[in-house]
Amino acid sequence: MRPQIVLFGDSITQQSFGSGGWGAALADSYCRKVDVVLRGYGGYNTRWALFLLHHIFSPEITKPPVAATIFFGANDAALLGRTSERQHVPVEEYGDNLRKMVQHLKECFPTMLIVLITPPPVDEKGRKEYAKSMYGEKAMELPERTNEMTGVYARQCIELAKELGVPSVNLWSKMQETEGWQKKFLSDGLHLTPEGNAVVYKEIVRVFSEAGLSSEEMPYDFPHHSQIDGKNPEKAFQQQCPADCSK
Amino acid sequence: MRPQIVLFGDSITQQSFGSGGWGAALADSYCRKVDVVLRGYGGYNTRWALFLLHHIFSPEITKPPVAATIFFGANDAALLGRTSERQHVPVEEYGDNLRKMVQHLKECFPTMLIVLITPPPVDEKGRKEYAKSMYGEKAMELPERTNEMTGVYARQCIELAKELGVPSVNLWSKMQETEGWQKKFLSDGLHLTPEGNAVVYKEIVRVFSEAGLSSEEMPYDFPHHSQIDGKNPEKAFQQQCPADCSK
Repeated sequence: MRPQIVLFGDSITQQSFGSGGWGAALADSYCRKVDVVLRGYGGYNTRWALFLLHHIFSPEITKPPVAATIFFGANDAALLGRTSERQHVPVEEYGDNLRKMVQHLKECFPTMLIVLITPPPVDEKGRKEYAKSMYGEKAMELPERTNEMTGVYARQCIELAKELGVPSVNLWSKMQETEGWQKKFLSDGLHLTPEGNAVVYKEIVRVFSEAGLSSEEMPYDFPHHSQIDGKNPEKAFQQQCPADCSK
Repeated sequence: MRPQIVLFGDSITQQSFGSGGWGAALADSYCRKVDVVLRGYGGYNTRWALFLLHHIFSPEITKPPVAATIFFGANDAALLGRTSERQHVPVEEYGDNLRKMVQHLKECFPTMLIVLITPPPVDEKGRKEYAKSMYGEKAMELPERTNEMTGVYARQCIELAKELGVPSVNLWSKMQETEGWQKKFLSDGLHLTPEGNAVVYKEIVRVFSEAGLSSEEMPYDFPHHSQIDGKNPEKAFQQQCPADCSK
């Protein structure tokens, strides 16, 4: 069985196999080496995600994944009293929930790399335009998420990662380093453009590589075609196979 | 454990999680329902792929995949006496190898949907331009693949699918129905552009749907977020979970 990287998160993970998506880009980079497993749940906050945790990361799995990304917060940070308040989770509970996730994963799979990712920044103007395009004049005037409040959740995520000794990606900060991030990286003020996906991909690959999970350094599952002798193909398969596949 | 669709093939499968790729598009369509598993081997012909067959489709797998695509022939059809002759497999053997694959899969997983896909057409002019861009004046003048010869392999694939009673996609014919297919669907005369990937995706989805594997008709693994009561989230998870995930 091939090693696995599990992507656990909300819609930004669920949509990561769309065109130009960061999940698909990971699967492409790690092809013939690692399977990238999509476990994204659009609209979910950390409170709801906890109901899935023990199913997705069951201690009964015989071969632990090599890595998992935990990428929540965009929905937890929805404001009370606004359109998306159903999804709101107080920031302290968001931290507690992330802690529960990391602790569960550490208990089940002590050797697995865990990467916490903060929510991306929010472009309030982009959200408003999106709401108007969807709901017309019925769209609420006040934003359901603010960049400032999402930043509070991002800091909580980064502090928790430090406390628990796991690597993290501060997407909220990273994206705002680029001029025009609002339209360049976000399609509707919250979800990612192909350029935004590329930022996530690059940051995850950087963290994976720092942790020794670089795709370039992993072996292919089976021989590269250039190593196969057209007249004696068995030989390559005898030399490089998980088991003897020359029969 | 989630149902799986396995994509078994050569470089056109291996590259299918690149930007706009047909494999990633399948993974996106079936997200939260089926895992799409990438088993593409660039440069492989059916003769070499047989060495992998029993590893990738092991009868010991406890839960059989729901479907598999078998997508070879582009390398088998490489011409003798030309640059890629190492990869050449005679058309009769190509048919025999595909038959071995289908028979193995039917024996291991009698309920699994098997879809045979022909190689795409070849744009000889595009191949020549590509060879010149890679190797300059050293590039061979004569094409290493012709569209006519690849068509012979495509017909063999389709006839075999009929004989064995499995569905197929005649990509070689389908693509040539569109004016300007040479540049529209092929990036280097052989591999796929995003538009070419879209053709493969659409054809596979059609065949899957005809066989009752439409994503729209499959249930979500866990509740859709709109079904979760913010004040009583347990309820949704008690009602719709593979096991009781409300604890």
